[in-house]
Order: sequence, then C-alpha cells, then structure tokens
Amino acid sequence: MTSALAREIAEQPRVLAALWEEERTGIEKIARTVREYGPRYVVIAARGTSDNAARYGQYLFGAHNRLSVALATPSLFTLYRSPPRLEGALVFGISQSGQSPDIVAVLDEARRQGALTVAVTNDPASPLAGAAAHLLPLHAGQETSLAATKTYTAQLYALALLSARLAQDEERLLQAAALPQVVARVLAESKATAQAERYRFMSACVVIGRGYNYATAYELALKMKELTYVLAEPYSPADFLHGPVAMVERGFPVITFALSGAVAMEMRPFLAQVREREAELVVVSDQADALALAHTPLPIPAHVPEWLSPIVAIVPGQLFALGLTLAKGYDPDHPRGLRKVTLTV
Amino acid sequence: MTSALAREIAEQPRVLAALWEEERTGIEKIARTVREYGPRYVVIAARGTSDNAARYGQYLFGAHNRLSVALATPSLFTLYRSPPRLEGALVFGISQSGQSPDIVAVLDEARRQGALTVAVTNDPASPLAGAAAHLLPLHAGQETSLAATKTYTAQLYALALLSARLAQDEERLLQAAALPQVVARVLAESKATAQAERYRFMSACVVIGRGYNYATAYELALKMKELTYVLAEPYSPADFLHGPVAMVERGFPVITFALSGAVAMEMRPFLAQVREREAELVVVSDQADALALAHTPLPIPAHVPEWLSPIVAIVPGQLFALGLTLAKGYDPDHPRGLRKVTLTV
Repeated sequence: MTSALAREIAEQPRVLAALWEEERTGIEKIARTVREYGPRYVVIAARGTSDNAARYGQYLFGAHNRLSVALATPSLFTLYRSPPRLEGALVFGISQSGQSPDIVAVLDEARRQGALTVAVTNDPASPLAGAAAHLLPLHAGQETSLAATKTYTAQLYALALLSARLAQDEERLLQAAALPQVVARVLAESKATAQAERYRFMSACVVIGRGYNYATAYELALKMKELTYVLAEPYSPADFLHGPVAMVERGFPVITFALSGAVAMEMRPFLAQVREREAELVVVSDQADALALAHTPLPIPAHVPEWLSPIVAIVPGQLFALGLTLAKGYDPDHPRGLRKVTLTV
Repeated sequence: MTSALAREIAEQPRVLAALWEEERTGIEKIARTVREYGPRYVVIAARGTSDNAARYGQYLFGAHNRLSVALATPSLFTLYRSPPRLEGALVFGISQSGQSPDIVAVLDEARRQGALTVAVTNDPASPLAGAAAHLLPLHAGQETSLAATKTYTAQLYALALLSARLAQDEERLLQAAALPQVVARVLAESKATAQAERYRFMSACVVIGRGYNYATAYELALKMKELTYVLAEPYSPADFLHGPVAMVERGFPVITFALSGAVAMEMRPFLAQVREREAELVVVSDQADALALAHTPLPIPAHVPEWLSPIVAIVPGQLFALGLTLAKGYDPDHPRGLRKVTLTV
C-alpha cells in the first residue's frame, strides 16, 4: 500500500500549479500593499519545516528585494514578554497548520505595533490566518503525513512568487511559472527512493548547502531525523569547515546540495576536500562534474534558476528520505512520538 | 602536561575582569554613539563560535533594548553580490581573529551604506577592526587552543555590558560586575571534567536550551563536535519536540541547559518527557529539582540572573567537553583537520 507520504510527495506539481493559478491576484494585491508600506526589514516567525522556508526567505528577500530578514525569536514575545520594536517591519508568520500559539503571538504583537503582517498557511481558518492582516493560503489540500513535504515546497513557492511580484520582475515570474513541470519531471525521473537502500545501516550524517540551498540542507536533515531517526545535521560548507569537519572519518556520510549558480564555485573545492577525507558522498546536483564525485548521485534537471532551485532540489531529498524509511522498516506515516501540530508557547 | 585548552578555560575569570576594567569608558562611548544613532534593528555577522555569541545577542538586544536582531547571511554580500539595504541598522561583526573575509565584507558594505558598525574582536589590528567605525576589543590574550573558550565568554560579556550601558541600566551593570567571581567559583567547584568519563563511548547526542541559553546549547554542541567528534546537535525544546524527538530511544543522551528564569517553566515538562522516553540526561542547572532528574547533574551557583547565565552555564559545558576529549584519548589542542582561522569568502 502506498503511504500518505509517498502520495503527498507525488502531489507537489499539482499543488504548485494550483498555488500559481489560485493566488495570482491575491499575491499581486499583497505585493502592492507591501510596496506602499515600504518595509525597512523583514521578520519571519516559524518553526520546524516552516522555519526552513523562512531560511529560504532570508536569501530570497535579501538578494531580490534588498531586505534584511530576521528570524523571530518567539520566546521574547511569550515567555519573556519583552518583544522587540517592529515598526517599519514586514512580519510573516509561516505555519502549515496555523495553530502554533507562539507564532500567532508574534503576529498579534506585530499587528498591535502597526507592522504589516502576512500569514502563510495551509489553513485559511486558522488562528494564524486570523491574526495577520493579509493571508497567503497554500492550496496544498490536507497534509496527513506527519513529515511535511507538499506544504514545504508550497511555502517556498508562495514566498518566491511574492518576492517576484514585489520586485515586479516579469522574467522571474516566467521562470516560476515553469516550475511545477520541472518538479513533475524530477518525480518521474529520480531513482532516489531505490538509491537510499545503500544507507540502510547509516546512523548519522551531515547535510551541506549554502545560499538559497542552505534551507534545503536544513529541510532534508529534518526529514531524515523525523522519518529515519538518523542523526542528520545541516551546515553551510563554511560553518562545517570551521569545526565540525573534525568528525569526518573514512565512510562518514556527507549529503551535499551542489547546484549551479553563485555558490557553485565554492561547492566544488568543498566536495574535493571531503572526498579526500574519504567521506561517503551523496550529491544532489544539476552538474555532471559534481555528480561524478558522488558515491550516490541524485541528479536534477539543468537550467533551473538558482533562486528557484530549492523547490526542485528538495524533491530527490524527500524521495531519498522516504526510501531510507522503507529500507529501515519504519512506517513513513507514523514516526514514533510525533504529532502533526505542535503547540509551542 | 596541562593543555592550552585547560589553561584558557581557567583564564576566563581573569579575562572577564580585564574586559570589565579596560573597556569601561570604551563601551560607554559606543553606547552613547548608538543611542544618538537610534538604530531601527541590529544585524550581526559572525561564524562558528562567534555566531553563537550572535545568538545570545538576539535575546539580549531583543529583551533589554527592544531591538530585532537579524543574523547576517554573508554570502549575499560576497558570492551573490546582492547585499540587503542596511540604512538605520546597527551592524556588528564578531570574530575572535577578525580575519574572516566574508564577515569583513558585511562590515565594509554596512559602512558604505552609512550604517553604524561595531567590531567585536580579540585582535584590534585585524581587518575586521579596520573595517568597523567602532572597536570593542576582547582583552582575552592570545588564544592558542583551536576550540575557542575564553574568547566566547568574553564576546558574550562584551555584548552584555554594551546592552546594559545602552539601556543605562545600573542594576544590570552591578549584576555584570559580579560575574567574573561567579565564573571563578564554577571553575573551582565543578566536577564536570571527571563526570564526562561516563560518556567515553557516546557517539551522538543532542544539546537543548531555550531563550538566552539557546546560544549555550549551540556552543556546547560545537565544542563537542570540534573536540570529541561526537555528533552533537543543538535544539530548542520546541524545535526538538517538533520532529527530532523521534530519534530518542532508550539511553540516547540529551544534554539540557535548564536555568532559572523565564524558560524554567518550560524546561521542567521537557525534562520529564525525555526521561519518560528513557533518555540519558545530563543537566546543567542552578535548580535542585532539575538536577535531581539527571543521570549526570552539572550544577552552577544559584541567583545568577538569567540574562547573564549563558556566560556561567557554558563553563561546566567546556569542562565536560575537555573531560570527554581526554577520556576518548584525543588531543584537546590539536583536533584533527581544524585550523584556528577559517577564511571564508
């Protein structure tokens, strides 16, 4: 029997296409409001998978909209009751369920202070949607698997579309329009589920990405921990070489996202260096020479623009995590000890 | 023979006292300039250990100075050549050596844009010190061990003193003045180095902290990875329960910072929950009931204000990491494959 996780991974092209269709005018309207407001900086409140979407937002809004992005520290708003000033900020709350009380608390306070607030959520009737002045719904349909997949790529896509509309960048919008089909192609062509079998007895690994795909490294690491109980830690190559590289010994698994674009020139020497330390390399890439360095190459199509590549690159990662879950004999839909909605105060 | 690491851990009370003495007027002067400037938000650029000091800064400046803090994404300034706007920001660069080109690049750009810049570094002659308009030197003396200890606590203390001066909070300054003696007491009383022996065969663990001590969890995890090659991953209890808790099985080691203060009410049920899952608990705390839940209690003195507790709580952590390094038969001064200064672009 197919798992809900496998079905929801497969639904992604349809979800992304629906988001593109349904929110065309909605996102344009939010973008207009944001342009009129003229934010000085961005604050994003999120947890878990949604926090990885926020990480993507840091690069997206930084590079394309010239906005500094702070990831909110919700405990300042709840436990410490000492929230920072937010005048002039554009404040996002990102949450699949829209239920987490601490994320809602950040939006409540931001609105109270007069900041511009946007909720990015899969549930338009959720407390988060109610707390924000503007709503960007994900149109992902119900997500029953505990490990979020389709809502993650939908969150990234929602932010990408908003950023492009905000910059009134028609070329980027055209690139984004083509994305659902690229994801469909990855799903049709990737062998990642079967390739994961080799890692049946892996108990720990690191996941490396930089720039836009720093978020992708975090997200794959989280899926691995949730689904396969492998201790997977995400790093930028720089931070990894700054200390944790000391852990790498012969056969230590290093999963690397090495996509074309601005960070490619840095990923190549990184891959060479960990190969030299005889690490076991899994590489997600659109570049033949990076894939050639891998014990396990996970290719994605070429010519995906770097700013959109996280939405594509995570997909073989999801399939790899699913395959490893099955190889290890675990139930992908019922990871031990997890609930779909976590109510953090 | 004593290691440089052990000596530098022991030097911390002296370093903190020197910083207090030497930078009294310097920090007051920077605080005055910052007040006149009236920053809208803060950006901190840092890597590795210094990035953990930045994490402390997020809570410190948020709770006591009502400033949102964004951790900079240096690749936007270097690889992507697309830096965000920084007008109205107070921009810190934090680096022990002051050498990292990407951190210098953030400060260069911030200054070019007219933002107020401050370098927090142990080397007043470094490129970082030259790039910033204001310098906050650490007075830690040469740090020869590859794992940073005294420069980390000095970075935290420098930020704490600046925050208190900025808020013109005399009570907090008095609390801070007492800190070097508290650290001296921990060094005299802690048995953490010997207690680490039990973990001789540990290969992986998680380190938990929230609020101010979220930084402490990150920093201890980094020391463990650098020195003992244990795969140690830091989490807030909320993020941990959001997914990675799935990894916890009988005997899985969970190191928790459970200090008094605003987050204490949350740490107690967290400790109970991981105990129930039969985790192996190491607890750093000033509270008898939290320590009583631990297989390995690492006590610190009571009545340390929460905002300063990260400077105290990391010390038994450092001793624990040192002890584990020795128990595993590694050389604390020469972790494999690490250099003291990492030059990231």
